[in-house]
Amino acid sequence: MPVDTPASSATRPHVVIVGAGFGGLEAAKALRDAPVRVTLVDRNNYHKFQPLLYEVAMAGLEPDDIAHNVRNIFQGNDTVHFRLGTVVGIDTNARRVHLKGGDPLGYDFLILAAGAVSNDFGIPGVREHGYPLKNVPDAVNLRNHILRQFERYDRRGGEGQSGALTFVVVGGGPTGVEMAGALVELFDTLNDDFADFDIREQARCILLEMQDGLLPPYQQSLQTYTQRVLEERGVEVLTNTAVEQVDAEAVHLNDGSTIPSQTLIWAAGVKASPVADMLNTEQARDGRVVVEPDLSVPGCPSVYAIGDMAAIEGADGFEPQLAQVALQSGRHAASQIRRRLDGAETEAFSYRDYGQMATIGRNAAVAEFAGGITFKGVFAWLIWVVIHIAKLVGFRNRLSAFVNWAYNYFTYSRSARLILDMVPISDDIPMEVEEVDREVKARLEEVKAEV
Amino acid sequence: MPVDTPASSATRPHVVIVGAGFGGLEAAKALRDAPVRVTLVDRNNYHKFQPLLYEVAMAGLEPDDIAHNVRNIFQGNDTVHFRLGTVVGIDTNARRVHLKGGDPLGYDFLILAAGAVSNDFGIPGVREHGYPLKNVPDAVNLRNHILRQFERYDRRGGEGQSGALTFVVVGGGPTGVEMAGALVELFDTLNDDFADFDIREQARCILLEMQDGLLPPYQQSLQTYTQRVLEERGVEVLTNTAVEQVDAEAVHLNDGSTIPSQTLIWAAGVKASPVADMLNTEQARDGRVVVEPDLSVPGCPSVYAIGDMAAIEGADGFEPQLAQVALQSGRHAASQIRRRLDGAETEAFSYRDYGQMATIGRNAAVAEFAGGITFKGVFAWLIWVVIHIAKLVGFRNRLSAFVNWAYNYFTYSRSARLILDMVPISDDIPMEVEEVDREVKARLEEVKAEV
Repeated sequence: MPVDTPASSATRPHVVIVGAGFGGLEAAKALRDAPVRVTLVDRNNYHKFQPLLYEVAMAGLEPDDIAHNVRNIFQGNDTVHFRLGTVVGIDTNARRVHLKGGDPLGYDFLILAAGAVSNDFGIPGVREHGYPLKNVPDAVNLRNHILRQFERYDRRGGEGQSGALTFVVVGGGPTGVEMAGALVELFDTLNDDFADFDIREQARCILLEMQDGLLPPYQQSLQTYTQRVLEERGVEVLTNTAVEQVDAEAVHLNDGSTIPSQTLIWAAGVKASPVADMLNTEQARDGRVVVEPDLSVPGCPSVYAIGDMAAIEGADGFEPQLAQVALQSGRHAASQIRRRLDGAETEAFSYRDYGQMATIGRNAAVAEFAGGITFKGVFAWLIWVVIHIAKLVGFRNRLSAFVNWAYNYFTYSRSARLILDMVPISDDIPMEVEEVDREVKARLEEVKAEV
Repeated sequence: MPVDTPASSATRPHVVIVGAGFGGLEAAKALRDAPVRVTLVDRNNYHKFQPLLYEVAMAGLEPDDIAHNVRNIFQGNDTVHFRLGTVVGIDTNARRVHLKGGDPLGYDFLILAAGAVSNDFGIPGVREHGYPLKNVPDAVNLRNHILRQFERYDRRGGEGQSGALTFVVVGGGPTGVEMAGALVELFDTLNDDFADFDIREQARCILLEMQDGLLPPYQQSLQTYTQRVLEERGVEVLTNTAVEQVDAEAVHLNDGSTIPSQTLIWAAGVKASPVADMLNTEQARDGRVVVEPDLSVPGCPSVYAIGDMAAIEGADGFEPQLAQVALQSGRHAASQIRRRLDGAETEAFSYRDYGQMATIGRNAAVAEFAGGITFKGVFAWLIWVVIHIAKLVGFRNRLSAFVNWAYNYFTYSRSARLILDMVPISDDIPMEVEEVDREVKARLEEVKAEV
């Protein structure tokens, strides 16, 4: 009796997914049991839980709490394969994705989920002197820098240290608010570390926002609450304020004033990943690929763009760049591929907004759910903590993040206060070799000057 | 009534301790309540638990499990102050320690506890191509490299990959044995990650030892057991074998043979920290400062050298470079300073050997206690685990390490399989700027070629 041989997986349609963030990972999961082969490409071997990157930068969590090995997620699954690689070109005619230093990947369907990168809006000095926060090395690097500023200040007894302990956070969206709230908590921990000077008096956290309130998309009452809590905790909030220029020692504002500071944390905005530029199709002002209602790229029905790199028309302009949009659009693209395989018409995507939330720090958060229900304070913070732990990938990450948070909560400490003598390699894609060189050199010079 | 003012701490004798490893930290703790001011200098802001560095390199633990912020240890203590700094010179006449980029520190007593650095014994290519394992960035870098080797192999379908998955560990002491044992366990985890090839067949771990058995200072039966267990688990053990030369693609041995390999893990030996060279006093062949019986430096009764950087005469030559020796000599130096302050004579140090242990991997370890009592197997392994968790500094580190180990034990996984796009800055002291540049450039080139 002949052995029953399943159809070889090599003959199945090949789906390439670029990016293992929320959108790409969700799409891959949705195709796990589909009659396809999936290759999930990312330049890192881990999925990072981006909403908690700021906690790594502020020494509250460690990288392994928020990052999860991608291969581990798909262990034992025959459909989804992972490929570590950097996309340097897309040929939609030949249906090929070009990878740096490797053979191109042919595809039958392509899902682009490369996300977004930091956007300096061309403001002079931000690229050279600003600290972005889009990936794990960024976060570790910012943590190292902040901790070094305090060590340096201590060593020099505070002399000639104008602005050494002034930390300017630019951008009053959730990332900026969360960062500022966590930073003043870090000040409290460090105040116990450094006996020789009063950090609560010497260190400043200034939060800049161009618009006239923090968390612009939230209801007015939550905006007011957020600003009040941050100010009570010591954050100096400047609204209607923009950065004109930055140098190594100061941040220059649009009102002509100057803040002496050696640390500009850039949470002012993002633009689409450079992968979006590889398609030769219409892009929004921030580089996002303008997609058809079914999320396919115009003229390329087998190519889908989702998440932060897609400009998806919604009721009020393009949908926001949120985890929820990425997850839902990832699922949608996967199900369109299934429909195509079944010979069915594709469907239009529609985003279902369940609400949004942001934490301000210990015992304080704001949340706004569908139907206009809002929460603020301790209850919102508890919801925030529970949801964020629940959404981390993998039991070990959840347990480890829980342990760290519980420890920090009860000890009023931020436990990950390690300065690692390592410098990041930027993950802008595709960066020129000379640029990497320059960047690493610059960071290295800085580190050497400080040590 | 006048307020009772305690003697200003500024008038107390100043003790400078260089190095926050086992020895320096123990000395600082022993002086916590002494009538002195202590400045503890280290070039990192954390104490690292060196015996578990290999677990970080082998993706079993994360850096924050084995590293603990030094300031945190002395929070609330008025006697001990921490200073982040790199020692670049010692002036025993003027009683000053010179720090890179900062004012010199004057001292009344000096404890040198700068430890040891990797020793390439001048073997060509080891410095350029070998992976040392003496600090946390080393460990993270080695972890990144090992994981990248598998990603690279997978991407190229194994073609032209001679030696890509051959990992050569040099040195059959505890570090080499622990590393080899952990590496074959990592192979098992990765075998589930990579479906396209059989790692148990493709990947090799070769352990080289110059002498004719592993763990030379242990009893013969434990040596034999160690080798047998490692070989059963897939490690190829080559004794009586030395490395002649290394290049990017191969390790050349003293018997004329060549092992194609892109990874040489260097656990063959150490030499004293370059701080030992700053004293102009007698040094042992490996650079250690030859000390007086009371651990003071000859001719400098106020300067003590302890731990891995001190050559301490014992019953059988110099005492070994073990954590126990560092801890005991740190306590001894601290108590000599107390005696000196009390006007008493100093005492000779005598090392009390409680025994030694090494783990081979899951459920297997060897232990040898005072009085010739030995254990091997599961029981020795349990003792090893309990002691190592108990000895970690800080409750959070112990809990976190326990969680990670328990998770890995029950899931047969190594959870910290993250490739971080960061390159280390070498912490050789005092390294020339050009050397740092060259090193970072070389590592960067390597990373770029791989990504």
